[in-house]
Amino acid sequence: MKILVDAMGGDNAPDEIIKGAVDAADLVDAEIVLVGDKLIIKDKLEKYGEKKNITIKHASEIILNEDKPTKAIKEKKDSSMVVGLNMVKEKEAEVFISAGNTGALLTGALLNVGRIKGINRPALAPILPTVLEDTKVLLLDSGANTNCRPDYLYQFAQMGSIYMEKVYDVKKPRIGLINVGTEEGKGSDLTKSTYELLSKSDLNFIGNIEGRDLLTGDVDVAVCDGFTGNIILKSLEGLGLMIFKLLGDEIQKSFKNKMGAILLKSSLRALKHKMDYGEYGGALFLGIDGGIIKCHGSSKAKTIKNAILQAYNFAKNDTIKTIQEQIKNS
Amino acid sequence: MKILVDAMGGDNAPDEIIKGAVDAADLVDAEIVLVGDKLIIKDKLEKYGEKKNITIKHASEIILNEDKPTKAIKEKKDSSMVVGLNMVKEKEAEVFISAGNTGALLTGALLNVGRIKGINRPALAPILPTVLEDTKVLLLDSGANTNCRPDYLYQFAQMGSIYMEKVYDVKKPRIGLINVGTEEGKGSDLTKSTYELLSKSDLNFIGNIEGRDLLTGDVDVAVCDGFTGNIILKSLEGLGLMIFKLLGDEIQKSFKNKMGAILLKSSLRALKHKMDYGEYGGALFLGIDGGIIKCHGSSKAKTIKNAILQAYNFAKNDTIKTIQEQIKNS
Repeated sequence: MKILVDAMGGDNAPDEIIKGAVDAADLVDAEIVLVGDKLIIKDKLEKYGEKKNITIKHASEIILNEDKPTKAIKEKKDSSMVVGLNMVKEKEAEVFISAGNTGALLTGALLNVGRIKGINRPALAPILPTVLEDTKVLLLDSGANTNCRPDYLYQFAQMGSIYMEKVYDVKKPRIGLINVGTEEGKGSDLTKSTYELLSKSDLNFIGNIEGRDLLTGDVDVAVCDGFTGNIILKSLEGLGLMIFKLLGDEIQKSFKNKMGAILLKSSLRALKHKMDYGEYGGALFLGIDGGIIKCHGSSKAKTIKNAILQAYNFAKNDTIKTIQEQIKNS
Repeated sequence: MKILVDAMGGDNAPDEIIKGAVDAADLVDAEIVLVGDKLIIKDKLEKYGEKKNITIKHASEIILNEDKPTKAIKEKKDSSMVVGLNMVKEKEAEVFISAGNTGALLTGALLNVGRIKGINRPALAPILPTVLEDTKVLLLDSGANTNCRPDYLYQFAQMGSIYMEKVYDVKKPRIGLINVGTEEGKGSDLTKSTYELLSKSDLNFIGNIEGRDLLTGDVDVAVCDGFTGNIILKSLEGLGLMIFKLLGDEIQKSFKNKMGAILLKSSLRALKHKMDYGEYGGALFLGIDGGIIKCHGSSKAKTIKNAILQAYNFAKNDTIKTIQEQIKNS
């Protein structure tokens, strides 16, 4: 198995990316290929520690965050992103991980790698923590498709269900449809029609869920259009940052507070750990005919390491093959 | 000035509602009218302390949370909600506050009180805290209109701007359009067209904002359709509950943690206070030709007290008259 990592993508590339690959190397039975400038990567690998299952694939260009997605994919043919995507297309590798330009990665995955036959629209699917210790929730689509149809959302549910079963070992994943009320018949034309489709399916559809039910651990897969999903994800990110910022400010206000924070250090760290997207790797771009994982732009080594473990489980458990078969039979 | 309070609406009615009215009585130069069963209210008022500016308006029925909105408004003509709404319609009172059935309140406000002339759709507009000490943000529409047109969103921005100026004394409120990216041209057909309308207006439109910018204090008014707004609001509520739940669980894990929490008590309380919707009163239903304030179903006395103060500022500063004039001239 080959897992490709875009060594040049993200705010902390290449150092943190390469460090993440090194940290993951002993944990997976796969070849990790760092894609990017070979001289730079070689130099950094010497610093962080070479591993015999880490190799380099040279690419001379870099797609920047400010680049226009379609133009960048078409013109920067020797960029780390395009080289990585093309290797997935040619089945030379199972998964490509990047913390680079999101728009370019999604566009490139669609244009260069292409969809699984029968899938209308691939969806971006990050994992979120829940209030329960061992339960996570997959939110899809979290931003790939601004305008959606009911049949897209239905396929998101299918793919999400397979993903949670294959990668997180959840039996009969519970599917919730994100809506403005829990009763049947609530919501927009899109959610009403999607509700009907999901009700008739053999998925474990538990009905509509409201925003406040997303993180309670009552569902394993939460389905919505990409506009809604993107805004949920970023709103949650904003609130998380706000709460830790306010708490940090409060702690600085007195000696007593600082003492309290020292005693509570492990608790606060556990909480921060639980809320940290980096713990969960990256977001799968589900529905592409190859593994594509998008990591947050500000990813550090830990996120990349976790994304490599995620990629490994994704590929090892034949997630794509299962989606292909289920779509063919539905 | 008369401020009506639905004594029978909400999970904690009538006790907490009546207590909230009593707590607010000395703080406003207005008559507070408790609408509901006069025997029950009289009895409770004796318990919480009678005030000479608190009066009772009898209503024999109650609209329950499980009642269907339109049916309830049409059939329960002597309910506290319908009696209150009709008094606003007849200009016998400036504002009606209720923590009861949200759907019924919005439906009743539309049917019985009606819209301000020229307003296409009223919007539900709650106030949210931000990371900055003295900055709040108004989120509208947060759930009244599932399907929206660009001209609705444009009017939401107009009304929100007036509200923040009149009630929260914000000069030239900064308007942000909630979207999946900050660049012009991003998003759905709805957000693209709304962006154009807002750019051409004389509002202080600062452009698109992403979910994570909602609580940074960079905008005073955040505009979106009611489907998106409802889901943002409830997702934030869910995450807030989750964080405090997890922190509470962590604190219980050891004696050291408990000691830390005791030292940090005032900080944690300040944080909880800041995150507590009850501190900000209720959500205005902006665009109705009368003041309508929806409080959270689980509101306690503090929320009702704050909603009465909010109602007082809303009415005192001629918010509705200003909206009427601006709509007529635009």
